[in-house]
Amino acid sequence: MAHPGWEATLASSEDRAVAELLELLRIPSVSTDPARGTDVLTAAGWVRDRLALAGFLDVRLIPTSRHPVVIGRWEVDAALPTVLIYGHYDVQPEDPVDLWETAPFEPTIRDGRVFGRGAADMKGNLLTAIHGVEASAAANRGRPAINVAVIFEGEEEIGSPSLGAVVRDHADLLRADAVLSADGGQFSDTVPSQTVARKGLAGIQIAIRGANSDLHSGRYGAYVPNAARSAGELIASFHDGDGRVAVDGFYDRVIELTAGERAEAAATAEDDASTLRALDIPELWGEAGYTAQERLWARPTLDINGVWSGFQGEGSKTVTPAEAWIKITTRLVPDQDPAEIVELIRVHVEKHRPRGTRTEISGTAGSAKPYLLDRSNPVYAAVDVALTRLYGHPPVVQRAGGTIPATAIFLDELGLHTIGYAWSAPDSRSHAPNEWYGIAGFLRGRRGYAMLLDTLAEATG
Amino acid sequence: MAHPGWEATLASSEDRAVAELLELLRIPSVSTDPARGTDVLTAAGWVRDRLALAGFLDVRLIPTSRHPVVIGRWEVDAALPTVLIYGHYDVQPEDPVDLWETAPFEPTIRDGRVFGRGAADMKGNLLTAIHGVEASAAANRGRPAINVAVIFEGEEEIGSPSLGAVVRDHADLLRADAVLSADGGQFSDTVPSQTVARKGLAGIQIAIRGANSDLHSGRYGAYVPNAARSAGELIASFHDGDGRVAVDGFYDRVIELTAGERAEAAATAEDDASTLRALDIPELWGEAGYTAQERLWARPTLDINGVWSGFQGEGSKTVTPAEAWIKITTRLVPDQDPAEIVELIRVHVEKHRPRGTRTEISGTAGSAKPYLLDRSNPVYAAVDVALTRLYGHPPVVQRAGGTIPATAIFLDELGLHTIGYAWSAPDSRSHAPNEWYGIAGFLRGRRGYAMLLDTLAEATG
Repeated sequence: MAHPGWEATLASSEDRAVAELLELLRIPSVSTDPARGTDVLTAAGWVRDRLALAGFLDVRLIPTSRHPVVIGRWEVDAALPTVLIYGHYDVQPEDPVDLWETAPFEPTIRDGRVFGRGAADMKGNLLTAIHGVEASAAANRGRPAINVAVIFEGEEEIGSPSLGAVVRDHADLLRADAVLSADGGQFSDTVPSQTVARKGLAGIQIAIRGANSDLHSGRYGAYVPNAARSAGELIASFHDGDGRVAVDGFYDRVIELTAGERAEAAATAEDDASTLRALDIPELWGEAGYTAQERLWARPTLDINGVWSGFQGEGSKTVTPAEAWIKITTRLVPDQDPAEIVELIRVHVEKHRPRGTRTEISGTAGSAKPYLLDRSNPVYAAVDVALTRLYGHPPVVQRAGGTIPATAIFLDELGLHTIGYAWSAPDSRSHAPNEWYGIAGFLRGRRGYAMLLDTLAEATG
Repeated sequence: MAHPGWEATLASSEDRAVAELLELLRIPSVSTDPARGTDVLTAAGWVRDRLALAGFLDVRLIPTSRHPVVIGRWEVDAALPTVLIYGHYDVQPEDPVDLWETAPFEPTIRDGRVFGRGAADMKGNLLTAIHGVEASAAANRGRPAINVAVIFEGEEEIGSPSLGAVVRDHADLLRADAVLSADGGQFSDTVPSQTVARKGLAGIQIAIRGANSDLHSGRYGAYVPNAARSAGELIASFHDGDGRVAVDGFYDRVIELTAGERAEAAATAEDDASTLRALDIPELWGEAGYTAQERLWARPTLDINGVWSGFQGEGSKTVTPAEAWIKITTRLVPDQDPAEIVELIRVHVEKHRPRGTRTEISGTAGSAKPYLLDRSNPVYAAVDVALTRLYGHPPVVQRAGGTIPATAIFLDELGLHTIGYAWSAPDSRSHAPNEWYGIAGFLRGRRGYAMLLDTLAEATG
């Protein structure tokens, strides 16, 4: 294959590309925080303008009840294939802020990495897609090698509550042969991967109420229900001693791994000793009977994301707390259903309601169905070829513990499968302090997008 | 008994007395909060100045490593008895602030009650003692009816860590026949009471650490220890299903109630239905085999005062928390020992350490031994007489769930027993939002102190 024209375009614009990434990272587009609504909108506008600059002919900012979706389409030739590139411009909250070495929204470059909230998840990946398409067009007389549509949402980190309706309402603009997800990553900096499954998600919050006021623990603690203690009791009820979720019916629809899938899991499993060292923990946790990799790939979880009750200040306060809160998300695997799982948890909470308390459950995150890729999809093969060219050897098979609700939406609404095509490192601390994104991977990712368009054009031609 | 002279003095100064109470309540003397150090000092100075104004000849502000102790002595005649009046001018933290109907440090009068942090615990009671002694002196040619010493500390709400050393170093200024505690209350607005026991206290904080950083729950939640879940597991381990503390050895030194003491408990027990209604709870909680009153009076407790971990904001954050904290205080009964109980909890936490975590225990509150009054003490009899005069009928016997570490200190350092002589109502919401103190009780309490000095003078004469 000849040295393609987009290589020079991309090589000559690397400094500008990094500067653009820093600019986008400075916008604190935290979608879960109502106080950041304007920032999320600013990020949406930035992405829309950048798509227009790249050459997308039809770019739209679609309003929703919370944060807009940016849609773009670049129709070149109806005879050529079309990819729909998916991503999101919103980010996770930055707290706990005091654990960041540099401010989360003042991106900083150290040792070839950009540190900042959203760097790995996924503003860096989002730019690789735009830059790759832009370079492909520059090398093809102003038009990318194939037809490209893009959809970048602002609600991925809160479970994509509006995406389904937007996709449904704009199906015509989004028609394609497959979706490429720019959200995700590769197995490592040197080993590419294809992700064939993603977990589903359901989120709830539990409020526990004891007495109608915080009380003096000396006067009341001996006989009045304590909400903080009750929260502990309820949290403890969700797992048995073997790390298995103790909610009745939770595993009923779970499809067991086949021997072949267990072998795929083992092929790329990190050894436990390295994990313990890297995370500085004395022991792993989780469901007995499965390796860490198997738990990550194919076992559902019920995760306590937060708990709070009573006095949290300096020193001591002898109080019997009246209220406690627990935040939970569950990660689901085929064929679990998010609504059914929330109902099972509701029944569990009622059954295990601590003595003397009242409990209340509310939803916190949009739900997502678990997703399993049909590997016979032709774009799966094209990505295999592109990744092999890009890294010099073929990708390994992966499954992701993370959830991208979009994949189920594209399947339901457009009948399209989603193939991951993204560059974040597995240890990039997305959702945590000191999130980072490697600059070398960023630059390779831009080339990756241009290369894949060529690969798909070749496959057609 | 003739109408004593101090009645007129007190009756003519009621408006000024209430104004003084509001003034003292405006000083946010929260002893546990390092940021409030200056306010605590301001309150100490206020009390010192007020004692000097009342006529105390020797008033001192004794510095400690945190908050000063105010000591005063008014020596009248070595042949007369001496009471040492104990109290504290510090207050509990005001949070949760948003549950207060009016600002905690902007005291407000509604329906004959003063609402504000520290109103019932115990700035109101503190003033009744000063005003009572002042009025006694006004009615006795400028000298109170007996010798009076006072000791008001600024660290009661953090467990009185400095009081022992101050009492030891100033034993000569504090010599007396008995201590009167102005911290506490009566059985009700119409029924007086003598408190014959107080619980001891020990406080700890537990830190639980999982991985060295908060992590993405999709990527890591299936196999990495979750600190929030672990906190729940540990909290749940502290009690069995019968509300009994499950720490090995916790009850070893507990003295069981006698049949007579159970009868005393039953004599003034609130009926459970009223408690449920008043606190709006469906059911009581606590150690099986004992009534609520028996639990309050004579059964030790382990109270979860606070817990926090992970994400507490709006919406959802899919995080595997790396750290969690639990605040605990225990209420102890004779003959439990605070240091021994902390050690038993330490062993328990090590034994029940959740899989894959590390735990760390630190102290949060000064410890206090449980206290049981020797009812043969003569001042016990004098208080009986004074309360009977004041309320028109004799006091009932009570035990307090609350802790006043000072009682054990006065016994150890000065050989003195402490008799409660205070006016707060049992439902006055001390340590909680909307703390209040009744103005009628305040005015009666001022009379009570002047009356008790007379009663003790009579007993001598």
